[in-house]
Amino acid sequence: MSDAMSDTPSDENGIGIEPDAVAEDARVARTRADVSRAALEVLTGEGWEAVTHAHVARVAGYSKTTLYTHWPSRSDLLTMALEAIGDMPHHDLVGDVRTDLIGELRMLRDAIATQRLDRVLMAMAQWGATVAEIGRVRRRIVDDGEKHTRQMLGAVIQGPELEAAVSMLSGSVVCPTLMYGTLPDDATIEAAVDILLRGIELRGNER
Amino acid sequence: MSDAMSDTPSDENGIGIEPDAVAEDARVARTRADVSRAALEVLTGEGWEAVTHAHVARVAGYSKTTLYTHWPSRSDLLTMALEAIGDMPHHDLVGDVRTDLIGELRMLRDAIATQRLDRVLMAMAQWGATVAEIGRVRRRIVDDGEKHTRQMLGAVIQGPELEAAVSMLSGSVVCPTLMYGTLPDDATIEAAVDILLRGIELRGNER
Repeated sequence: MSDAMSDTPSDENGIGIEPDAVAEDARVARTRADVSRAALEVLTGEGWEAVTHAHVARVAGYSKTTLYTHWPSRSDLLTMALEAIGDMPHHDLVGDVRTDLIGELRMLRDAIATQRLDRVLMAMAQWGATVAEIGRVRRRIVDDGEKHTRQMLGAVIQGPELEAAVSMLSGSVVCPTLMYGTLPDDATIEAAVDILLRGIELRGNER
Repeated sequence: MSDAMSDTPSDENGIGIEPDAVAEDARVARTRADVSRAALEVLTGEGWEAVTHAHVARVAGYSKTTLYTHWPSRSDLLTMALEAIGDMPHHDLVGDVRTDLIGELRMLRDAIATQRLDRVLMAMAQWGATVAEIGRVRRRIVDDGEKHTRQMLGAVIQGPELEAAVSMLSGSVVCPTLMYGTLPDDATIEAAVDILLRGIELRGNER
């Protein structure tokens, strides 16, 4: 952290900005970035119950006191971890609804397997209900994750049908993960998409 | 606990059973029942992270030492809590697949709302993967929860289609709970069942 000054943005105009304040802002910003990354690493690596001040401080290489000073509650750390999640992984759309829905579900499955998105989901489920800030971050993450699916299906169905369809597709991947501790294979993902497409009468004649 | 003796089964034959051992067994059995109930109460009331020796001991009215002696790990307490869950709530089947699937999903939704089955699900998801005993209890609870749905759908579809269909139906209730913190309304549940039934071409012509 001693080299934080080197990253301090130069203050060319020198109007209304104290150099010390700029350095301090840069230091806090860097600390925040380091701690966010560490908190996300702990969250996906071990699960949200491991996201404590002591553990995240150790992983990030800061003192516990520094963490408590800036982010006094565990929900602050979890919020930062969730905010550090970039955009959700998405399949490159090819313009064929069946292919694209299967692609999106495979991406979700693979993100659970390799990035432990299931742990992210469980943290959001656990904390999103009671901590408003986490509820907001969850909304952003879920919206981003569902956006292609909602767009594709929203061209054909709306309202309760659309809500049901989106949840049914997510459920084909999320439910086996939570309920059996297994991920669906390709055949199961394809079966889910085919059931859905026949069910909403898009390509109702294909099998 | 001082009246535990009064529940001790009488040992009429007196062969091979030490009265003290019988009394001890009865005491342990009663303690186990009390602690299991308390652990389940904490699990559904506050979530699995609150299931600690200190908290469960306080709720059950035993000493922490007693709990640590018999059930040294937190996973022991969680296993007991999950084992204390009786049969899953089920809709009384009427013999019409659409009505019965909707009834089952409503029961699932209502069990999440009133009995906080979502907290049970999250405990099972979190611990089932790493603690074999909890994995086994999860299997029993999930099998019981899905049995009617599997039976109804299994008459029409098998293999990956059946797996997909069961997860899609569960997902219509579980996914909104985890991802948005809301429960589906009746219209959404009915839409999910109708999409599914058309999708598996059972009553494919109804809308």
